[in-house]
Amino acid sequence: MNHYKYEELEIGHKESFEVEITEEMLDSFRKITGDMNPLHRDDEFARSKGMDAHAAFGMLTASFLSTLAGVYLPGESSLIHNTEIKFMKPVFVGDRLTISGEVAEKNDAYNTIRLKVGMRNQSGAKVLRGSMQIGIV
Amino acid sequence: MNHYKYEELEIGHKESFEVEITEEMLDSFRKITGDMNPLHRDDEFARSKGMDAHAAFGMLTASFLSTLAGVYLPGESSLIHNTEIKFMKPVFVGDRLTISGEVAEKNDAYNTIRLKVGMRNQSGAKVLRGSMQIGIV
Repeated sequence: MNHYKYEELEIGHKESFEVEITEEMLDSFRKITGDMNPLHRDDEFARSKGMDAHAAFGMLTASFLSTLAGVYLPGESSLIHNTEIKFMKPVFVGDRLTISGEVAEKNDAYNTIRLKVGMRNQSGAKVLRGSMQIGIV
Repeated sequence: MNHYKYEELEIGHKESFEVEITEEMLDSFRKITGDMNPLHRDDEFARSKGMDAHAAFGMLTASFLSTLAGVYLPGESSLIHNTEIKFMKPVFVGDRLTISGEVAEKNDAYNTIRLKVGMRNQSGAKVLRGSMQIGIV
């Protein structure tokens, strides 16, 4: 776990990590949230909606932004204030995602940073992009 | 699970549901994401950051937006395009949240709706607010 202080972070600082999306993640997310939508469990239903197979929940993919902030950038002293997320392409079980963040702004008055965030799959396609405002507490 | 079609939804249509945040949810979310940040497991650390106890992950709370869209509004035919989320107050284990969404815009050209979303705790305090753009597929 990283322990960056506000003063240590410069505009352009980048961190990234990789995760593989598993069926167990989808099962756990479904159990937490109660989101029983068939798009995320039924291949036939998902195909009727134009997908290749059942897709990961968008908000499950987005959940790795928690890890990006809380473990990598800034790490321990992180407190997420707000986030904007765009889902660009569906994510499937077996996909390997690279989750990355880059310090895009610093606000000295509030000790907050804004991260530009993105996620790419194993083919290099961008599946998510967005930003997060994070307090370094 | 609801099955609203685009034509059936009018501006101002509201749906809501309640969830209680449990320690098991935090454990499962930590296991999925690998976010080991002590703010979400260590009361003493959380108090050193000005919180009453270890807090729920913001992105865990946000995950219930998946349920709001995928089960309630519009339900089965939901595909989230993007979302903006502001975390207003911390959420703790034992909190009972009311998650609500209201159709704020409709875009006939794309069959998309924009939901204004909010979450309140058992004391009526707003803990999250935001919006979601959702395709009805």
